[in-house]
Amino acid sequence: MVSTPVVLGLDFGGTKIAVAVGDLTGRRLGATTIDSRDGAGAAEAMSRCLTAARELLAEVAPDHELAGVGAATLGIPYDDRVELAPTFPGWGELPFGRLIRDAFPGVPVRLATDVKAAAAAELRWGALAGCDPGLYVNLGTGLAVAIVAGGTVITGAHGASGEIGYNLRSPADVYVAGDGRTILEHVVSGQALETTGTARLGRPVTAADVFTMARTHPDAAVLTDQFVRELATHLANLAIAVDPSRIVVGGGLVRSWDQLEPGLRRALDAAVPFPPELSVARFPTDAPLIGALALGVEAAGVDLGAEAFA
Amino acid sequence: MVSTPVVLGLDFGGTKIAVAVGDLTGRRLGATTIDSRDGAGAAEAMSRCLTAARELLAEVAPDHELAGVGAATLGIPYDDRVELAPTFPGWGELPFGRLIRDAFPGVPVRLATDVKAAAAAELRWGALAGCDPGLYVNLGTGLAVAIVAGGTVITGAHGASGEIGYNLRSPADVYVAGDGRTILEHVVSGQALETTGTARLGRPVTAADVFTMARTHPDAAVLTDQFVRELATHLANLAIAVDPSRIVVGGGLVRSWDQLEPGLRRALDAAVPFPPELSVARFPTDAPLIGALALGVEAAGVDLGAEAFA
Repeated sequence: MVSTPVVLGLDFGGTKIAVAVGDLTGRRLGATTIDSRDGAGAAEAMSRCLTAARELLAEVAPDHELAGVGAATLGIPYDDRVELAPTFPGWGELPFGRLIRDAFPGVPVRLATDVKAAAAAELRWGALAGCDPGLYVNLGTGLAVAIVAGGTVITGAHGASGEIGYNLRSPADVYVAGDGRTILEHVVSGQALETTGTARLGRPVTAADVFTMARTHPDAAVLTDQFVRELATHLANLAIAVDPSRIVVGGGLVRSWDQLEPGLRRALDAAVPFPPELSVARFPTDAPLIGALALGVEAAGVDLGAEAFA
Repeated sequence: MVSTPVVLGLDFGGTKIAVAVGDLTGRRLGATTIDSRDGAGAAEAMSRCLTAARELLAEVAPDHELAGVGAATLGIPYDDRVELAPTFPGWGELPFGRLIRDAFPGVPVRLATDVKAAAAAELRWGALAGCDPGLYVNLGTGLAVAIVAGGTVITGAHGASGEIGYNLRSPADVYVAGDGRTILEHVVSGQALETTGTARLGRPVTAADVFTMARTHPDAAVLTDQFVRELATHLANLAIAVDPSRIVVGGGLVRSWDQLEPGLRRALDAAVPFPPELSVARFPTDAPLIGALALGVEAAGVDLGAEAFA
């Protein structure tokens, strides 16, 4: 064993699993990606991920001690299951934490949702540094936020804070269970925009396509206007409740930031008594993986300084 | 001077100012109340309050050291002004913190909104003890909440967290400033129910009257049903965002708790992935004053144990 320990970060997303090895300052020593859909289901994807992680460790950090593992996932991770992960068949039944602990015996492991890991990365090294409170918004395939206060990410009593994809859209829906109503994520998310865009525009489009087409195509502009308007309603109400100094937006849809930002900015200025700053995340697309590394370092018991990534 | 120091708590409400003297365990030694509307405006009301406070101290704690002052108010208090207090003319321009500090030279002073003080009282001695996170909801003349996490009340970057009375009610309002739209508090608050009740029922009624009449009077029941439905929508979305272990409701409207609770309970169970507990506050009507005492003890630098009030 050489003297400098390393940590492992795992980010289990809806379409890919990202694996990284870093040192205790968060510096990335190597990374790899696995297609989580390209196989025989959730358990098999996890198995391939753990194999890839061991191979990556052997390749980039042979003979270094593995001091901690951080794992971020879609859904709410526990040792014996994953809650609220309906988009990835079989994922909910996976003994998530246990499989990771068993793969690295004796190594401390920390679990979090992907969005909370992303917020932790922004709080520690990114655009939420020093914000108390602050708000991280993930606009990706799905929709979720994380509230940051007192120098940490608020986990929630059941690890489920920030899952605003389940939000009620109007008082008409108030006594209706989630599967009987159109939850916010069904209208405001990358997946939702892809679905409505494909239906309205008459050909298969991605969410990014819809935003691009909105510059010149009135039908697409109607969709993105509705999207921004409804997202802005919920973010403004969250900003009123939390009074953050800054809202930071990450996730795949920030590629269309120039079309998201004006409406969100205008809504916050109009609705919120003390309007927060609004910016793109420092790690817009890979924050969960960087956050997983940070979780790994936290698991290792090291207090990370803000100088890393500076 | 005798050896046991005391603290002073001041709660500036929309219609009355409450003053209490307590010991460092939070035990109340004496209290008095001033009608804040019955005089020559905000500055005069503050002056009468400070005089009453000095008289109360002389009466119940003569020769005791005053170790701290806590002051809770409607609006957001600062040393030189009070923000978001439009319902009390003249209050906004009052140099709130400074007047209190000047009245008790050398004594440490802590300021908070009335709802945050109430939440602090519930967290320390009441129904939110041990909740991480937890949510305090004030249903009084106005509407506001306080988020509790990590053993403290989240203040907000500008002291304005929890002011959900300003919430947007629908995406149709999203780019409209507060004075151009019907904010949530104009529909969901004691004042709002009094106004709509009086208009619809054809005679002057209080919010409590409307709830009482709703048991037998269909027109009143329509109003309370709408009230609970819209309140429940916003509380459910807040519960989704925060994932509290418990929501605690205080304020004057808890007198109608038997008519509020079923709808709120049903909405939380239907909408929130992990539904929180729901209960009435331990100090439903005087929590801001008890919270002000707690702020006074905090100002005095004493770490209060949870055994007080037990």
